[in-house]
Amino acid sequence: MPFTRITAAEAASLIKHGDNIALSGFTPAGTAKATTAELAKIAHAEHEAGRPFQVGVFTGASTGASCDGCLAEEGAIRYRAPYTTNSNFRKKVNSGEIAYNDIHLSQMAQELRYGFLGPVDWAILEVCAIEPDGKVYLTAAGGISPTAARLARKGIILELNAFHSPKSIGIHDVYEPKDPPLREPIPIVHPNDRIGTPYLQLDPSKVVGVVECNIPDEARSFKDADPVTDKIGERVAEFLLSEVKRGIIPQSFLPFQSGVGSTANAILGALGSNPEIPAFNVYTEVLQDAVVDLMRHGRVKSASTCSLSVTNEYLQGIYDDIDFFKDKLVLRPSEISNNPEVIRRLGLIAINTAIEVDIYGHANSTQICGTKMMNGIGGSGDFERNAFLSIFTCSSVAKGGMISAIVPFCSHIDHTEHDVNIIVTEQGIADLRGKSPIERAHAIIENCAHPDYKQLLWDYLKIADKGQSCHKLSAALAMHDTFLREGDMRKTDWAAYVK
Amino acid sequence: MPFTRITAAEAASLIKHGDNIALSGFTPAGTAKATTAELAKIAHAEHEAGRPFQVGVFTGASTGASCDGCLAEEGAIRYRAPYTTNSNFRKKVNSGEIAYNDIHLSQMAQELRYGFLGPVDWAILEVCAIEPDGKVYLTAAGGISPTAARLARKGIILELNAFHSPKSIGIHDVYEPKDPPLREPIPIVHPNDRIGTPYLQLDPSKVVGVVECNIPDEARSFKDADPVTDKIGERVAEFLLSEVKRGIIPQSFLPFQSGVGSTANAILGALGSNPEIPAFNVYTEVLQDAVVDLMRHGRVKSASTCSLSVTNEYLQGIYDDIDFFKDKLVLRPSEISNNPEVIRRLGLIAINTAIEVDIYGHANSTQICGTKMMNGIGGSGDFERNAFLSIFTCSSVAKGGMISAIVPFCSHIDHTEHDVNIIVTEQGIADLRGKSPIERAHAIIENCAHPDYKQLLWDYLKIADKGQSCHKLSAALAMHDTFLREGDMRKTDWAAYVK
Repeated sequence: MPFTRITAAEAASLIKHGDNIALSGFTPAGTAKATTAELAKIAHAEHEAGRPFQVGVFTGASTGASCDGCLAEEGAIRYRAPYTTNSNFRKKVNSGEIAYNDIHLSQMAQELRYGFLGPVDWAILEVCAIEPDGKVYLTAAGGISPTAARLARKGIILELNAFHSPKSIGIHDVYEPKDPPLREPIPIVHPNDRIGTPYLQLDPSKVVGVVECNIPDEARSFKDADPVTDKIGERVAEFLLSEVKRGIIPQSFLPFQSGVGSTANAILGALGSNPEIPAFNVYTEVLQDAVVDLMRHGRVKSASTCSLSVTNEYLQGIYDDIDFFKDKLVLRPSEISNNPEVIRRLGLIAINTAIEVDIYGHANSTQICGTKMMNGIGGSGDFERNAFLSIFTCSSVAKGGMISAIVPFCSHIDHTEHDVNIIVTEQGIADLRGKSPIERAHAIIENCAHPDYKQLLWDYLKIADKGQSCHKLSAALAMHDTFLREGDMRKTDWAAYVK
Repeated sequence: MPFTRITAAEAASLIKHGDNIALSGFTPAGTAKATTAELAKIAHAEHEAGRPFQVGVFTGASTGASCDGCLAEEGAIRYRAPYTTNSNFRKKVNSGEIAYNDIHLSQMAQELRYGFLGPVDWAILEVCAIEPDGKVYLTAAGGISPTAARLARKGIILELNAFHSPKSIGIHDVYEPKDPPLREPIPIVHPNDRIGTPYLQLDPSKVVGVVECNIPDEARSFKDADPVTDKIGERVAEFLLSEVKRGIIPQSFLPFQSGVGSTANAILGALGSNPEIPAFNVYTEVLQDAVVDLMRHGRVKSASTCSLSVTNEYLQGIYDDIDFFKDKLVLRPSEISNNPEVIRRLGLIAINTAIEVDIYGHANSTQICGTKMMNGIGGSGDFERNAFLSIFTCSSVAKGGMISAIVPFCSHIDHTEHDVNIIVTEQGIADLRGKSPIERAHAIIENCAHPDYKQLLWDYLKIADKGQSCHKLSAALAMHDTFLREGDMRKTDWAAYVK
């Protein structure tokens, strides 16, 4: 290998206050981990010495404790985009200490190339194999690596992580679109099509060093399914089956996308175990353990994803059985896994979880009570906005019933009424297709709201001013305000808000 | 011609209460007019006789007095999608008498094909020429005609309108994508590419008759530019030029899209008259007179549009000089003119007008004070969500200063913070790219708000709860509520809303 071996501490020491770093990975899967952990130590020492030390962080999606976690804790992040799930990071965002730019994941790489987010100084990429001519093989995610590597103006740091087996070589399909006016169609017509190369070709002269390490992926574990998520899963499976039977979804089914978490697991479980639903393809951004099981059982025919957001046990299982998975599994850069062009062409069934939805079909995916960031929009906008069927799920209530997920007006809107087809709670399904706003309101309140909140929502419609959407603006956010002041949305008194 | 000639009244008599009709056209341009005008008379007579008579109306975009106007007046529309501009129609929507489904224009044809909006009973198409084998030539718009004709289960009515010259044959590029899982890339890589046929091939057996007529297009006229729109136009032109100079927009420029109206005219005027901006291509949904002038002067090299929403004088001018325009002008179905895939690939500069924007960059395009429908979202979501540069413009105040277009929280959200790059008012420009919500708020208040409202908006931030977005939910819509109650947003007293 013609590249210099360096330690993670040496790599981190190259990065200066004010630099922007761009990382491999998508969700903690495949994120470079060694250098950023050392960078946090440098930030700590600099801050102890009274000197400023902050960087900008560009990623594919969320990272784990070794990046967002320790860098946020040290106050070492000035700016970051896009999605994140780390709790340290979240605290600093909500206190205003970090400038967080919550953009659609499909747009991250192109916004870097377009120059909208400032320069990329360093690319830090986790790889499982390196060839002398600068071909490298990524690990558990595609992310923004191709763009990060090409744009990095100060250099590329490679983390050769022995935790990821080179047996996975061949699983990636690396493709970076050209920019307008030279961009061409992205030629994917089947979820499993390969259009690029299994390797990422770097400019070897930009590689400043290789950090050898052996660090497990920082996979998240999700809550187990519970009766509420199981019920949602069942309802989704029943609904999709009925759409096949009435000829809306083709008999051969359509490619499936779902977000991460226990609801997604429950939905996949319900789809997978329903013998009337044919084996299907997955076109998504994150692959969870449940899909790996369905692939092994022949229920999922192929899966295209940006990342293997699986537990480490499942990840090693894939590496061990790579001959089984190689032609069924493809990892893509986030710009392709989440690409509106491809999503619309393939006709995805997209299912994501909302924090809350309003009676007219707007959805909040990101900010609790309009202010507190949870994780960011992630790919939900990419998928839901362009899907064949755009489905949002949520539990009808949260916090033991003190919060209703069905509200008159979302306290933050990430997906508009124009972009949501179906809402599913454990209470039932509201089919919004072809409906006017007031017809949607009736369907959502009747079918999806929790019994504790139905009358409250009907009463809101009684005080609302008439129009295409009916609202009383002084009271539209009263349920949220009541929760903030009294801890329980059920205590909402409309009369107290009507001016 | 092997098809039966029938009168418009005979054609209208075929349409029964409860039927759904799908029309050619996009904006009043190219809309079938003769049959619907007669249909309104039938509805009138039926209603006089105490019998119900209502139809569903599917269109490309807005229609004029001969459809939305007279049908709404007669109470003959039960359901309608998508965009509309007619004032009779608007009244009936806002009083709850018509179920109006405001969907993205790019999705209209495919939602019909997918079966989301119910069956199409009749297609009524305006054409300028008919061949015996069922090839027809559309007039001033692409709209949803290919899909309407293919789906119509009861039949197709053709309106052969002599007002539109058959000299325009060749100006259309008719292309209807297949549905998933069979859809292929839409192979447009240059704004002016042709990928379909100049004619629409009908199933001749479905044509129930040809209505011969000579009816002018119901073109709208827009207010002339004024000092405010001129200033906005100037600022946009200056901004785009500066983006070329700093290397963000390529030297060759990028294809341009703008909405309709006097602001769009002012922007086009400013771009066209600035010698530093190179001649450019237009990829849009509606072509106004201003673009025709720029084409004649060589400032616009080519234009792709769904409709010729020009004055009748300009329309006849195009027909008269068809040899000049034929290779520079292409009319497409709305599904293609507004297609996210193509918009993102070509890298459009998209500029549309908002009713209001909030301090975090969400935009309201449709409903005044959250309830009263103006016209619908039209193509603004298709273009802004997928553009290279997503720009919204508005006058900083309306109603003589009593309404601020910059508010803490939009009373209706059609475009989210994730989808808006640049906001322009006559006061200045806010560049939101790469910024966190609070950074955006500072840029928008400082640069875009009217001086009468700046302090009020700064004061809102002072009372707001901290978070990723800072809001006081009880007061977030107080400016709107104050306007509704007192007629002037300037009278907003935050203290009266803080609970």
